[in-house]
Amino acid sequence: MIGLDWGTTSLRAYRLDPTGAVMGKRESKSGILSVKPGGFADELRKIAGDWLEDSEKLVVISGMAGSKQGWAEAPYLPCPATVTDIARATLPVPFPATRVRLVPGLKARDADGVPEVMRGEETQILGILDRLPEQEVTLCLPGSHSKWVRVRAGQILGFWTQMTGEVFAALSAHTILARSLHRGAAHHPGAFARGLDRARQGGGLLHQLFGLRSLSLFDAMPQMEAASYLSGLLIGHEVAAALEAGVAPPVHIIGAAALTLRYSAALAAFGVPSVVEEEDAAAQGLFRIGVAIEGTRFSLQ
Amino acid sequence: MIGLDWGTTSLRAYRLDPTGAVMGKRESKSGILSVKPGGFADELRKIAGDWLEDSEKLVVISGMAGSKQGWAEAPYLPCPATVTDIARATLPVPFPATRVRLVPGLKARDADGVPEVMRGEETQILGILDRLPEQEVTLCLPGSHSKWVRVRAGQILGFWTQMTGEVFAALSAHTILARSLHRGAAHHPGAFARGLDRARQGGGLLHQLFGLRSLSLFDAMPQMEAASYLSGLLIGHEVAAALEAGVAPPVHIIGAAALTLRYSAALAAFGVPSVVEEEDAAAQGLFRIGVAIEGTRFSLQ
Repeated sequence: MIGLDWGTTSLRAYRLDPTGAVMGKRESKSGILSVKPGGFADELRKIAGDWLEDSEKLVVISGMAGSKQGWAEAPYLPCPATVTDIARATLPVPFPATRVRLVPGLKARDADGVPEVMRGEETQILGILDRLPEQEVTLCLPGSHSKWVRVRAGQILGFWTQMTGEVFAALSAHTILARSLHRGAAHHPGAFARGLDRARQGGGLLHQLFGLRSLSLFDAMPQMEAASYLSGLLIGHEVAAALEAGVAPPVHIIGAAALTLRYSAALAAFGVPSVVEEEDAAAQGLFRIGVAIEGTRFSLQ
Repeated sequence: MIGLDWGTTSLRAYRLDPTGAVMGKRESKSGILSVKPGGFADELRKIAGDWLEDSEKLVVISGMAGSKQGWAEAPYLPCPATVTDIARATLPVPFPATRVRLVPGLKARDADGVPEVMRGEETQILGILDRLPEQEVTLCLPGSHSKWVRVRAGQILGFWTQMTGEVFAALSAHTILARSLHRGAAHHPGAFARGLDRARQGGGLLHQLFGLRSLSLFDAMPQMEAASYLSGLLIGHEVAAALEAGVAPPVHIIGAAALTLRYSAALAAFGVPSVVEEEDAAAQGLFRIGVAIEGTRFSLQ
């Protein structure tokens, strides 16, 4: 089978053998924002045409390709949800001689009843779900919109989001803080730790953000360290809120290494153990959904 | 005398009689960012040349004109500070036949020892300071960088900043929230109140920001209300942090009417009474500093 992780600004394609092993992996910048309406089938042929000709008959696609702005809209499926639920809810799209299916996003409600959505992360979660212990586990998927997820015995129970990554990007580029930091600076673990410490002091986030500016005015915040400090400050607030809401340690962190290591350090600073999962959980998640589709195909239309 | 409130993007000039009454008021967009190096004296002549020819001999200038990027740098004066301290620390700049003085900003430290700065707000505070009761009073000056200030018996004791206004601007223009809100929409008191309520729920600010997006995805957040909701959410977090740090009610709010009314409503939602001060406190502050300069001139060089 073929699995596609098709996001807003990137596209990853995997060719998977019947055991789930990745036989081929390709990446392109053809995220859904760069695909013209009606152009999704052509884009699929472009990245995986030879695999399709070479007898692959099932394509599972996760991510924003299944959103309103994508190939077609696979509506959000409510939590709790299992891999079977998600496989059943995949949306078929027309394609010659091949079954092509879009993975739905998930929806939930936070503790105060406010709606929550994810699209793409559910597939990463499924990639590690059957290797987790049976009891409740908390997953963290850091990013522009970090997801904190409760799972138990093969079920995605619920989740909530923190806009940490996107807030970092907006503040570091579009406020007075831009003058205090060098955005291309390498990660500075000491400054990151200072930011984490600061997050546990008083005054709230909106106050502590200004402190970065005033520290820099008084030459107490080197430009090459300020971005890491800001990152620590925001991730510190995120982790503090997550712990207040309740987690089941160790927290399993899924994502790119640069981020998972920061979150692991942040959780450790709060005394919470974590496990960093493999980076490429999406391929395994797409495989699990493919297997579930095969397993349920006779009960599907 | 002449008083100038000279900020980053605007310039206001006041002609004041010996009682402090405003005899003339002029505004221009010649904020310090639009003045070329060495051009400040010319800009002063442009906005107040006729007043100067008509015998005015003292010009007091507050705001960013006294910063490193301005006419000359009047270094930050530490708190606690009185009008006399500030008058003594004004920085003379050369100008023919007229004393022209730049008002220094103030510096302080927050409860955790992080430095704090203001420049311009100290003059607005002095504009109302001698009308306040002798005991400790909390002032709130909302804006891009809101200031919460402790004053007592003519002294500015200390202050701290929250970056609320600038964070609002960055988030509403440069994140996914931009798609959910109409930035030109009129203030919507009901949505503002919903945002205030939300600020008192769980999950932290970074989580609650994403909720605005997900509410909008599920058609539960009209675009014309979303900016007011976001404003209520951020101001709610600011006020909650201020109350946690401690205020001496009623809080006196100084600033433009559109903002002071929101802060008054936010404080009321938290059960804290407030007094909205006149909008144009800078003119009176410049006058008080001018009087203090006259009073101390024989002790100055």
